[in-house]
Amino acid sequence: MARPSCVLAFSGGLDTSAIVPWLIERGYDVHALIVDVGQREDWEAVRAHALALGAVSATVRSGRAELVERLLPTAIGLGATYEESYRLGTALARPIIALEQVRLARELGCKALVHGATGKGNDQLRFEFAYRTLAPDCEVIAPWKEWSFAGRAELAAYLAEAGCDTEFVIDKLYSLDENLWHLSIEGGALEQASAMLDVPSILEHVLGAAPDTIAPAQVTLDFQAGVPVALDGERLPLEAIVACLNARYARAEWAWDLVLENRFTGVKSRGVYLNPAAKLLHAASDALARCCLNKPTYALRADLAERWADMLYSGEYFSQQREAIEAAARSTMTHLQGSVTLAVAPQLHVVKIDAPQTLFRPALATFEASEWSHAAAAGFIELSWLRNVGCVEDDHESTLETDDEAPSGARAAQPLPGRGLVSAGS
Amino acid sequence: MARPSCVLAFSGGLDTSAIVPWLIERGYDVHALIVDVGQREDWEAVRAHALALGAVSATVRSGRAELVERLLPTAIGLGATYEESYRLGTALARPIIALEQVRLARELGCKALVHGATGKGNDQLRFEFAYRTLAPDCEVIAPWKEWSFAGRAELAAYLAEAGCDTEFVIDKLYSLDENLWHLSIEGGALEQASAMLDVPSILEHVLGAAPDTIAPAQVTLDFQAGVPVALDGERLPLEAIVACLNARYARAEWAWDLVLENRFTGVKSRGVYLNPAAKLLHAASDALARCCLNKPTYALRADLAERWADMLYSGEYFSQQREAIEAAARSTMTHLQGSVTLAVAPQLHVVKIDAPQTLFRPALATFEASEWSHAAAAGFIELSWLRNVGCVEDDHESTLETDDEAPSGARAAQPLPGRGLVSAGS
Amino acid sequence: MARPSCVLAFSGGLDTSAIVPWLIERGYDVHALIVDVGQREDWEAVRAHALALGAVSATVRSGRAELVERLLPTAIGLGATYEESYRLGTALARPIIALEQVRLARELGCKALVHGATGKGNDQLRFEFAYRTLAPDCEVIAPWKEWSFAGRAELAAYLAEAGCDTEFVIDKLYSLDENLWHLSIEGGALEQASAMLDVPSILEHVLGAAPDTIAPAQVTLDFQAGVPVALDGERLPLEAIVACLNARYARAEWAWDLVLENRFTGVKSRGVYLNPAAKLLHAASDALARCCLNKPTYALRADLAERWADMLYSGEYFSQQREAIEAAARSTMTHLQGSVTLAVAPQLHVVKIDAPQTLFRPALATFEASEWSHAAAAGFIELSWLRNVGCVEDDHESTLETDDEAPSGARAAQPLPGRGLVSAGS
Amino acid sequence: MARPSCVLAFSGGLDTSAIVPWLIERGYDVHALIVDVGQREDWEAVRAHALALGAVSATVRSGRAELVERLLPTAIGLGATYEESYRLGTALARPIIALEQVRLARELGCKALVHGATGKGNDQLRFEFAYRTLAPDCEVIAPWKEWSFAGRAELAAYLAEAGCDTEFVIDKLYSLDENLWHLSIEGGALEQASAMLDVPSILEHVLGAAPDTIAPAQVTLDFQAGVPVALDGERLPLEAIVACLNARYARAEWAWDLVLENRFTGVKSRGVYLNPAAKLLHAASDALARCCLNKPTYALRADLAERWADMLYSGEYFSQQREAIEAAARSTMTHLQGSVTLAVAPQLHVVKIDAPQTLFRPALATFEASEWSHAAAAGFIELSWLRNVGCVEDDHESTLETDDEAPSGARAAQPLPGRGLVSAGS
Repeated sequence: MARPSCVLAFSGGLDTSAIVPWLIERGYDVHALIVDVGQREDWEAVRAHALALGAVSATVRSGRAELVERLLPTAIGLGATYEESYRLGTALARPIIALEQVRLARELGCKALVHGATGKGNDQLRFEFAYRTLAPDCEVIAPWKEWSFAGRAELAAYLAEAGCDTEFVIDKLYSLDENLWHLSIEGGALEQASAMLDVPSILEHVLGAAPDTIAPAQVTLDFQAGVPVALDGERLPLEAIVACLNARYARAEWAWDLVLENRFTGVKSRGVYLNPAAKLLHAASDALARCCLNKPTYALRADLAERWADMLYSGEYFSQQREAIEAAARSTMTHLQGSVTLAVAPQLHVVKIDAPQTLFRPALATFEASEWSHAAAAGFIELSWLRNVGCVEDDHESTLETDDEAPSGARAAQPLPGRGLVSAGS
Repeated sequence: MARPSCVLAFSGGLDTSAIVPWLIERGYDVHALIVDVGQREDWEAVRAHALALGAVSATVRSGRAELVERLLPTAIGLGATYEESYRLGTALARPIIALEQVRLARELGCKALVHGATGKGNDQLRFEFAYRTLAPDCEVIAPWKEWSFAGRAELAAYLAEAGCDTEFVIDKLYSLDENLWHLSIEGGALEQASAMLDVPSILEHVLGAAPDTIAPAQVTLDFQAGVPVALDGERLPLEAIVACLNARYARAEWAWDLVLENRFTGVKSRGVYLNPAAKLLHAASDALARCCLNKPTYALRADLAERWADMLYSGEYFSQQREAIEAAARSTMTHLQGSVTLAVAPQLHVVKIDAPQTLFRPALATFEASEWSHAAAAGFIELSWLRNVGCVEDDHESTLETDDEAPSGARAAQPLPGRGLVSAGS
Repeated sequence: MARPSCVLAFSGGLDTSAIVPWLIERGYDVHALIVDVGQREDWEAVRAHALALGAVSATVRSGRAELVERLLPTAIGLGATYEESYRLGTALARPIIALEQVRLARELGCKALVHGATGKGNDQLRFEFAYRTLAPDCEVIAPWKEWSFAGRAELAAYLAEAGCDTEFVIDKLYSLDENLWHLSIEGGALEQASAMLDVPSILEHVLGAAPDTIAPAQVTLDFQAGVPVALDGERLPLEAIVACLNARYARAEWAWDLVLENRFTGVKSRGVYLNPAAKLLHAASDALARCCLNKPTYALRADLAERWADMLYSGEYFSQQREAIEAAARSTMTHLQGSVTLAVAPQLHVVKIDAPQTLFRPALATFEASEWSHAAAAGFIELSWLRNVGCVEDDHESTLETDDEAPSGARAAQPLPGRGLVSAGS
Repeated sequence: MARPSCVLAFSGGLDTSAIVPWLIERGYDVHALIVDVGQREDWEAVRAHALALGAVSATVRSGRAELVERLLPTAIGLGATYEESYRLGTALARPIIALEQVRLARELGCKALVHGATGKGNDQLRFEFAYRTLAPDCEVIAPWKEWSFAGRAELAAYLAEAGCDTEFVIDKLYSLDENLWHLSIEGGALEQASAMLDVPSILEHVLGAAPDTIAPAQVTLDFQAGVPVALDGERLPLEAIVACLNARYARAEWAWDLVLENRFTGVKSRGVYLNPAAKLLHAASDALARCCLNKPTYALRADLAERWADMLYSGEYFSQQREAIEAAARSTMTHLQGSVTLAVAPQLHVVKIDAPQTLFRPALATFEASEWSHAAAAGFIELSWLRNVGCVEDDHESTLETDDEAPSGARAAQPLPGRGLVSAGS
């Protein structure tokens, strides 16, 4: 009888390297799938490494087009951030990796899907929820929940014992995850709860160069339906725009965020996220939204952004709820047309918004003479205030102070606190 | 018969200066009330100016204690911002000014309250909603809705014609509002929809000095129940902490925000807000909240912050709804105990959080061996996923691809898309 | 020079009757538009009445198709109610009437739009927001805000004086509004704040027959994409289904609601709504949603329903925000396929749901042996609980009770309140 | 060495009966705790049964006072329902049972807490989250997650084999849970997804009598701070009011709800809830809230109710988030003062509300002459509409129809769709 086979999401790091011989020991043929979501990598070396570990096949597939077409437009159009600070880098790539795994499994006839995420983080949700929805007939294998290795040192020892080349997977100070949208840095010093953090040093360690003050300059982005289509006047594919901005501003002082976040489980963790393109595009998209959406729709957009981000963060990409929220998001994005110019130093900020359908009309807001009728405001306030009628604490005090002659207990029997209010001003 | 009398919220600027003779012409005795909410001002000169304009009395009252005790704790404890960017400077001071007006009116037996806000902005709501709630028996007078002056030039002409000294009220390039919490800059270049903005120049014009890179340094704040009680180890009243931070960091590059916001009416306007203390205290309070509140309570805090900010922005300070939201806010704030250290250059960011009741426990999150049980995650995911069951678009596609032998129309009759899912992993 | 002309939304009632001569006096040619949104009416008599009043033309147009195609599907698919009780009858029809007015104005070249709603209610918003969005070039005329008539008696006197036939517009005890979706009853006894209400008598007065106990029976509805397509197995257009249910159950004891609601302005009013079809279709749609949507999507639907209802109630049909919410609504509605059977007496309730893609799988929930793994729940709870970690009031008490030997003040210095929690159960 | 001891939440039913010998086999001394939360029970018989099964002690404690004082006021004051239909009966009692267990464990020095809830429902969360928060030092034992019995038949066999009297625990058609607030019915016919349900028969089977039409009558409830304090004019403790209403209306046709709900895990289950007192008190509390809260506070109350209900449903009673929400709830409840009269047949509905601080003022809403100024509405609408400016689909269409001469593509270059709008009506 044939050995069962599985598709492993392979990165070449310590965890997924150890998983290959571990799966083979358990009787599986392992197909290693390496998905290119924009990380910088020597693809051929990773492939060779997987085969050297015993994989029966090792495939590199690009998930970049899916990432750019499916995920980034909404991420940008909504300016989606989790807990107001994390721009979802890792979370956006995981559903694409899982989708490519399912596709390969269908092609190969595999009935098992494997990932290397631990039992402590969010990635396990993102992989497993996707597997279960897209391939409910497949077995899900999560070695971290089965094996007894306790930490990276034991994994390395196991690999060495299995005769594997561990040069490739040397222990690192930090745990990194990179793709088109961001580079995240976790572990190491970031796990010291009470230490003083030195983020510039961490970045220097990881990138080989510290953040620095960049020269004052400007960048202009054109948007269509909420999605960037040109950079400094040149029409470019979205992937190129993102890559270019990330390259240009990787060392800007504003390029990174230090975030203490609540994982899906509630466990708190801390990371540094380097994502200059995401920060810049979020700022531009927000500026356009402030111009082109009316007040309730701008508030709705913020709500959709929070929900969409929560869903992506929590592994709910392939779900009814994400489809519904995204339909609303696309509707708001149709209004985001125009170009935005940003200054990139010393602080990142928007200096100019050019939107044909802008609702920003200073003539309405000006302190000077304008088409606006001040008189209309009298009726506006008179009626708007009615929503706020009702006894409040200060109200009691102030009323009591002056009702010297009122018999005790009179208040409850009085007419409304807002009595006479309607005629007050007329 | 005695002339009716009114209490005018007087600032000494062009608008409230013109209101004094205008009210006198209409038959009112004018009591000018100047409320100190932390703006820098020559109080005696403003008083003298009011009297010179014809006011029967001119009083300076401090609203600083009320501002600091009633408004700032919640503003800081929640990190309240309107539309994620405006830290509510003007909005926080208005209810206090209105409250002082009502108090003075009670003392003097006045039956009318006057403000100088235009019919285009938010301040009219903040004044008038407060008047109507606190003093429903008083007449509300809003000259901007009655007179026919169209803009500042006509006001100045009117004042000159009335023989008033207009030197005090020379036209300014920008409209400024200052208090303990912020300095706002509106009008002028900010009303040019399509011009390129140069915020550093605007700030230099207003402040006499441009923002600059400040020297790397750190600042430590101690919090009790969400409110700062010590600065760099020294116990200080909240007002002193705020004033000190504003003075220290007024020229920091991160000290200001440029905001295009939706007024209560929906009209869009643009302003620059200089508020270094607010930005720094918000960052510190947020860091503490991320440590000390569990995940759902941290999310609840964000929601309360948004609601409280909306209410303050829209003039609903004296209302049932604000009292209810603030009760919840105070409950979350009881957990915010500890000290936070921030770096102030080049970027403002938190470098250390010391909270005795922190819920940030890296041992739960670490990549290394820990007390945590990876195995528990298997059941966690199995059950957590159930919420996400349901047909989705990708699901249809992927299933159809592989169900080659399924008769047409079979899908609807199939068992659940998630069939077998529960036993999939076991 | 030609007289200006306007299109008046004409109902034939007292208010719009008086408006015709009033407009003529003001120099307008009046085109009366009578829109059929499902009310029972002698159309020819209403037309003749308008012409007798002096209208230069009187047109009857059907808005029923627009109402049924644009508004009812979402109202039913979401089960939309305002403040959890009002099923939006009047609110759904107003945008259609306004739209027909704008269309007729375009055809005739009229530059003014007129409605007969008072300055106290919600209908003015619904008409005027629609006019302003669809025809910003047209003048809006709202006679109730201009004329000085104070109440219905004065209107009737004015009409009599103008030589108009007032037989048609005899004073009524209640103010009624009827369309395909509901009959609303306001005014009269409902305006007595402290009286004891007798709704059955009010209904008897209006309908000529009191509510009664109906015979036990069942009704079955088939839905496609959230919209009813068949009644008791017979495929029917939506309009016919609604009309049939309203006719069948008009006298059922559950057919009406008595609602004290907050108008857009905050003013509270009370009405009786007779809407058996709406109640029945809402119950059926909700049952299907409970079966076919997963937990987060079901919660999202409730949120969308509330928002959509608020928008319709407040006159925001033609708006960015309604378009976005409706896009999400349509996405959730694609899952609502199947048939629902309801008992209609003595209580309206769902007795059977037949949905091919139901997610209600008793085998998962049963108390008996099943495919479900109880053991998975251990890990699920262990991790789910982490979100709830944090000091609480009871926690302090119970812990202190047993920490007899702990020195005073020790609590703050202790490790986490949830210390050891993770290993507790293992 | 002493045997470890545990406190078991004992009901005397099949599950908790089987747990006693099972725990003894595993080496535990079992202290059975029977908590009286209002269920009808022969307490002495249950105690004797526990001891006969081998418990070293069996204690009956009343949790009724805690239930009534801690949980019911907020449940009533908010009108809290889960998914708009379940009034939380079981969910409210569970935290009290867990609290009593922890108290007894502290008294006895036990270090383990045991419950009999399965791994499929919500009760496991309610017990275990409470245990973990209140007694993090105690072991949690959930036999259903450890033993291998598959269903009730095997449990009964095990008990018989162990020589226990199983007469007491005869198999029942339905699974019932009763307390002061409700009686729930699950299992049996309710687990047949596609069968036609006959709820009256189910109720007759469980109660010995079917629902029936009750005689027309009225009931009056007085509220203080949102909590009922008198029934038909007689001051009574809350527990007595609830008990009396449940007794009076147990057979009313409106006394029950049939609910298909989403459990915490997302698994769908169906139950019948008999809770006449809860329905009646919710209706009365809601009526008072509609009168006494302004529009935004009434909306806030609905939101707080939903959140509080979700928390209670999901076992989050002892949590930061529940404390915060409840603080806001109490603030809104201070306004709910007055008395409400309800008709109880044929339909339950409110007929009279007497609230000294009511905000329902028909004079504001009337169609007749009143203190209200229609003219104010003109300005109100003019400014309120500004929030809704923005291109919409219909807008495009209607504009295009009439812009015959406009060159193709002209629309984007046009000024705002709402151009001139502000001056349109003036």
